[in-house]
Amino acid sequence: MDRNMPTRQLNDLTATEIVEAVTTGKATCETIVRACLERIALREPEVQAWHYLNPEQVIDYARALDKSGKRGPLIGVPFGIKDIIDSCDMPTSYGSPIYAGHQPKSDAACVALSRKAGGILMGKTVTTEFANQYPGKTRNPFDPTRTPGGSSSGSAAAVGDCMVPLAIGTQTTGSTIRPASFCGAFAYRPTWGDLRCVGVKEAAGSLDTLGLIARSVEDLALYRDVLFGTEPQPIPAESGAPRIGFCRTHLWRVLEPYTQRLLEDAAGRLAKAGAKVTEVTLPSDFEGIEDAHRSISSFEFARNFTWEIENHWEGISQRLRNGRIKDGLACSVEQYLQARSFAEKCRAVFADSFRDCDVLLTAAATGEAPIGLSSTGNVAPSAIWTVVHAPSVTIPVFKGPNGLPVGAQLVAKRNDDRRLFEAARWVYRRLVS
Amino acid sequence: MDRNMPTRQLNDLTATEIVEAVTTGKATCETIVRACLERIALREPEVQAWHYLNPEQVIDYARALDKSGKRGPLIGVPFGIKDIIDSCDMPTSYGSPIYAGHQPKSDAACVALSRKAGGILMGKTVTTEFANQYPGKTRNPFDPTRTPGGSSSGSAAAVGDCMVPLAIGTQTTGSTIRPASFCGAFAYRPTWGDLRCVGVKEAAGSLDTLGLIARSVEDLALYRDVLFGTEPQPIPAESGAPRIGFCRTHLWRVLEPYTQRLLEDAAGRLAKAGAKVTEVTLPSDFEGIEDAHRSISSFEFARNFTWEIENHWEGISQRLRNGRIKDGLACSVEQYLQARSFAEKCRAVFADSFRDCDVLLTAAATGEAPIGLSSTGNVAPSAIWTVVHAPSVTIPVFKGPNGLPVGAQLVAKRNDDRRLFEAARWVYRRLVS
Repeated sequence: MDRNMPTRQLNDLTATEIVEAVTTGKATCETIVRACLERIALREPEVQAWHYLNPEQVIDYARALDKSGKRGPLIGVPFGIKDIIDSCDMPTSYGSPIYAGHQPKSDAACVALSRKAGGILMGKTVTTEFANQYPGKTRNPFDPTRTPGGSSSGSAAAVGDCMVPLAIGTQTTGSTIRPASFCGAFAYRPTWGDLRCVGVKEAAGSLDTLGLIARSVEDLALYRDVLFGTEPQPIPAESGAPRIGFCRTHLWRVLEPYTQRLLEDAAGRLAKAGAKVTEVTLPSDFEGIEDAHRSISSFEFARNFTWEIENHWEGISQRLRNGRIKDGLACSVEQYLQARSFAEKCRAVFADSFRDCDVLLTAAATGEAPIGLSSTGNVAPSAIWTVVHAPSVTIPVFKGPNGLPVGAQLVAKRNDDRRLFEAARWVYRRLVS
Repeated sequence: MDRNMPTRQLNDLTATEIVEAVTTGKATCETIVRACLERIALREPEVQAWHYLNPEQVIDYARALDKSGKRGPLIGVPFGIKDIIDSCDMPTSYGSPIYAGHQPKSDAACVALSRKAGGILMGKTVTTEFANQYPGKTRNPFDPTRTPGGSSSGSAAAVGDCMVPLAIGTQTTGSTIRPASFCGAFAYRPTWGDLRCVGVKEAAGSLDTLGLIARSVEDLALYRDVLFGTEPQPIPAESGAPRIGFCRTHLWRVLEPYTQRLLEDAAGRLAKAGAKVTEVTLPSDFEGIEDAHRSISSFEFARNFTWEIENHWEGISQRLRNGRIKDGLACSVEQYLQARSFAEKCRAVFADSFRDCDVLLTAAATGEAPIGLSSTGNVAPSAIWTVVHAPSVTIPVFKGPNGLPVGAQLVAKRNDDRRLFEAARWVYRRLVS
C-alpha cells in the first residue's frame, strides 16, 4: 500500500492544523476537501471505508463555506460519521438492508454541532449491521486481507488512512477503541453520558457512547469541546509526568504474547521517563463484568430493535438473529436488572483504583488486526471500561510482529476526561519519538 | 361536560378488562376501537387531545387484528402516544411546525413493543413544543378553561377522558405526573433507564423517561411488563400495609393550602387504615436539586436541538428560545458537569430515605389544574424525584375546591417499581372507597 506519499500533504494534516491553515488564509475549505477526496479516490477501491460519499456535494458545501467567510473551531475540517448517525442531506442505513436509502429529516446532534463549528461532513463511513457484529465491506488500510475492526470500521479506516482527519464512531463494547487500534489511529471514548447521542441509532443505551477518532490527542480534545458546544480549551501546556497504573486485568491471558510484552516494555519505559508507575489490580468482582455486559447489551438491543424484528426479520443477518437478538430475548428482566445493579456497584468502586494513579495503562486490543474480514476481532479488552462508564483513549504507539499498528489504551475515572488527554499526550510523546 | 354516560361502556374499560374481554371473545378489537372512536368524536371538539387521528386507519388495523386471531398481553387495547414518539404509519411532528407532516421510517421501541403485544395505536396525542413548555391545543377534560398540564398534555387528557385506556408520555421534570394529576388519571414514571426511549425525541437524556398513563394501577404494571418485552406478572395478591414516609419536601410552601390539607388528611387516614406512617425529611442538600435540574436539562436540550436551532430558528417559539435554549447555551460545561455530579450524589444517598418506609407520599401537583391554557402548570413537585431517577406513581384520590382532580404521588427507591405498584394499589383502595 502507498503510505509513502510526500508528508504534510493537506489530507495528512490534523484538524488543529487545518483550522490554523484555513483561519490564517493558508488554505481554503475547498482545497482541504479536494485533498481528502483525492486520497479517497486513490485508496477507496482497496479500503472501502465509505458507505456514502458524494464528492460534488462535498465540494459545493466547502465552496459555500469559503464564500461565507465563516470561522469556527472546526472550520474547514472534513469529518466522517459512522452510518448509524443521521444527517439531513445524506442517506443513513445503519448498516442494514432494511434501511437502504433511508433519508433522515435532521442531523444528529453531533453532526449539527460539528457543522456549527465549521466542520465539513464528508460522508457516511461503513458500520457493521446496526453497530453489532455482522461486518461491512471495509478492509484494514494497512493490510486489505485483515479486518479494520468494528463496529466503527469505516470511521477508523478512513482516519487511519488519512482520508479525513476526524471521524465519529460509537462504542457499546469496544467498537471505537479496537478499530482505532487496528487502523493506527487515536481514539477517545468519553465518560458515558457526556456527549449527546440524539440522532444516533441506539444499540444499548446504558452502555452506548459516541467515539471520536483522530490523528492526535490534541484533535480528540478539540473535538470533545466542539461536541460539548463550547469554546475549545487546548490541553494545558505540558505539566509533570502522570501517575500510571499498569493494569493487566483478568483478561491478560487473552492478549497475544507480543502485546503483553509491548505493554510491559512500555510501562518500563514510562517509568524511566519519569512517570510513577504502579501495578493496579481490579477488584475480583470485576471478572463478572463481561457477563453483565452481555445481559445489559443483549436485553436492551433486543427491545430497541423490536420494530425491525417484528417487521423485517428477513432483513436481519443470521449472525445477529442467533447472537445478540436471541441472547436478548432469552434474558429475563430480573437478570437484566441484576446485571445493571452489578454494573452500578462496579462503577461506584472503580474510582478506588485511582488512589495512586491518574490513569490506567492497559491493552486497546488483543494484538494486530487479525487476518480475515468475517470477524471484527476480539472485543474483550474494552468491555470493563465500557461497563464502568470510564473515559479512555487509545494511542498508536506499538507495532506488532507484522509491522501493523497496536494501540495502548489509557483509562481514567469518570469525569476525568481532560486529565486523561494530558496523560495520553505525555505518554504518546515518551513512547513515540 | 358529559361525565355521566352509562358506566362500563367499552371505552370506559381498563386495559386489563379489554384484554380479558377480547381474549374470551366477549368483545372484538373492532368494537373496542369503535367505542373509543365514538367517545373521541363526542369529546374531541372540546378536549383536543389528538394531534393525529385517522379513524379509518385504526378500524382497518383492528379488523386485521381480529381476523388474524392474534393474542397477547395487550390484545385489543387502544393506546395513544405523545407526538414526540415515532410511528411508522402516522406522522410525528414533535409539537413543532419544523416537523409538520414528518413521517418517520420506523416505530419507536415502545410502540413496536405495544403492537407486538396486541395493542392498537390509536393516534398521536398533543405535546407541547418538543416536550418543553410552549403549549399545544389540548384543554383539560374536566374544565376546558383549564390546562391539561404538560408536556404530555394529550396523553393525560385522552386517558382521563376515557378516549383510550392507555397512553405513553414522557417526563423530563414532571411532564407525566402533573398532567395525569390534572386530568384525573393514574400515571407512572419508571426508574430512569428501565424502559427504552429509542424513537422518542430526546429532551435531556440524563433525565428523560417514558411515562405511562392509565386508569388503574394494575394497568400501569401491565404496561410496564409489555414495554419490558416480558410476560406480564400481575401485582401480587394484596399483602400487608406498606410503610409510608410522608414527605413534605422543601417545596411544601409551593403547594396550595388545600393540597397540603388533603395530603396531611390522607396520611392520617392511611395510618388509621393500618399503614405505618412516618415523616421523612430529605437531606438539606436536596434544596439544590432544582438548580441542578435546570443546568442539566437546559445544557442537554440546547445541544440536542442544535440542528433545529441552526437551521430553523424561526420555527422555534419565543418561549423556547428565551427559556430552555437561552439557559442551555449560557450554561458552561463545568456547571453542567458539576450539576450532574451533584445529582449523582443525591441519587446515592436517596435510598437512605427509605430506611423506615417502602414509599414516600408526596404531592403530584400544586393543586387543581390552573385556569388558562398558556401555561401547563408548576413543575416543582416532581423535579426532585426525576433528578434522583426514582420511580413514582400518581393516583387520582383527591378533589380540589372546584371539584377537580388532584393526585397523590408515591415515590419508591430506584429499581423498586413493583413494590411501588403494590403500595399504590393499597393506598388507592384505602383512600377511594
